[in-house]
Amino acid sequence: MVLGETASARDWASLIDHTLLKPEATEADIRRLCDEAAQYGFASVCVNPFWVKLAACLLRGTGVPVCTVIGFPLGATLPDVKAYETRRAIFDGAREVDMVINIGALKSGDDCAVEHDIEAVVAAAHEHGVLCKVIIETALLTDEEKVRACLAAKRAGADYVKTSTGFAKGGATVADVALMREVVGGEMGVKASGGVRDLKQARQLIEAGATRIGASVGVKIAQEASGQKMTAPETRTAY
Amino acid sequence: MVLGETASARDWASLIDHTLLKPEATEADIRRLCDEAAQYGFASVCVNPFWVKLAACLLRGTGVPVCTVIGFPLGATLPDVKAYETRRAIFDGAREVDMVINIGALKSGDDCAVEHDIEAVVAAAHEHGVLCKVIIETALLTDEEKVRACLAAKRAGADYVKTSTGFAKGGATVADVALMREVVGGEMGVKASGGVRDLKQARQLIEAGATRIGASVGVKIAQEASGQKMTAPETRTAY
Repeated sequence: MVLGETASARDWASLIDHTLLKPEATEADIRRLCDEAAQYGFASVCVNPFWVKLAACLLRGTGVPVCTVIGFPLGATLPDVKAYETRRAIFDGAREVDMVINIGALKSGDDCAVEHDIEAVVAAAHEHGVLCKVIIETALLTDEEKVRACLAAKRAGADYVKTSTGFAKGGATVADVALMREVVGGEMGVKASGGVRDLKQARQLIEAGATRIGASVGVKIAQEASGQKMTAPETRTAY
Repeated sequence: MVLGETASARDWASLIDHTLLKPEATEADIRRLCDEAAQYGFASVCVNPFWVKLAACLLRGTGVPVCTVIGFPLGATLPDVKAYETRRAIFDGAREVDMVINIGALKSGDDCAVEHDIEAVVAAAHEHGVLCKVIIETALLTDEEKVRACLAAKRAGADYVKTSTGFAKGGATVADVALMREVVGGEMGVKASGGVRDLKQARQLIEAGATRIGASVGVKIAQEASGQKMTAPETRTAY
């Protein structure tokens, strides 16, 4: 989906996972995030597992689902730990999970382990009709590794590939989104995340093939799209 | 324990968790880390959960235990996920676990949740005689929060408090180690980690009250202590 110049704030909000993953986020921060999500109609709120229960409670009846992160942000734990974390988050109310691949296994040439790891989370998610996105952490990978990671995610039956955790040295780029879209084809989603700062950049990422944006500045992007400054809460700058 | 100027390379190595936690570490990196640990006699090797099984296999018979990290580095997952991860890592051969507290709960004033979270991991670890260190991530905390975090770790029966993950904006400082030592008293360990670069800094941290050092430059520190450049593998720069 490519949004033209006339797309509304709500059109843009519907593409954005409204995200707050910094470890020092407080209950008050999570409450504000959920208020904003309900107000603007974001695609989801994306919070750490500990906050899923609260966010799901706050968002009941708003139509905004809760997304959480699995094996985040290093991806270097065991597949069954990731699967367990997925089931627990779903029990608490998560409807989407963004899992981090095993980057070290990928770099060691063990694509079989990478795929098995993704499969474990996909199985736990799909059992409950929950969407699974696969973070490949592009900033740490060569292009060849990005391709192998996307193919593993596709073979494992994931719903989306996603560029970044926001905790590595770099985030989403137009070139990476285009590469990922080319590799996974038209049937999977591509989520661009990490360092997305404004509407202009979000539009470039969507035009390159992204179908979802992860950002902490969703309110700012929606306000830019509506061409007006609303009296909404302050935007935040980082995870 | 304070090491004087005459302490040997092996004395120093026995205080250092030889650490490699970056997500892109490969099997070859882990093998080299374990070789170095066996050669120098480090207190442990500290690796991500995915690598525990390999490290435990490589270190069998050397006397060097495997340490791993739990809920790392954000600490923002659920207590039972951390407990599950702990049990899995122990099953794979971990003998020490370094868990990250729930920083967001601490900052929300929910010390009860912080303590319960630590207890869940301590219980899983102590059931198998495994040492549990509690990372409070000093760089994100006020001094008052550092004190509350240390008291929660002490009440929960943890073995060590530990300054940092190495993934936040700052690492171990002499002032933080001294504060943590003062709060926990003489019966708990204090581990200084994050950004430890050389013997001089390691000595300052030990003098301030640390009983363990977490570092990726353990080989360099041991070499400095022995006053000679051994023909050991290159030291690494991060984590």
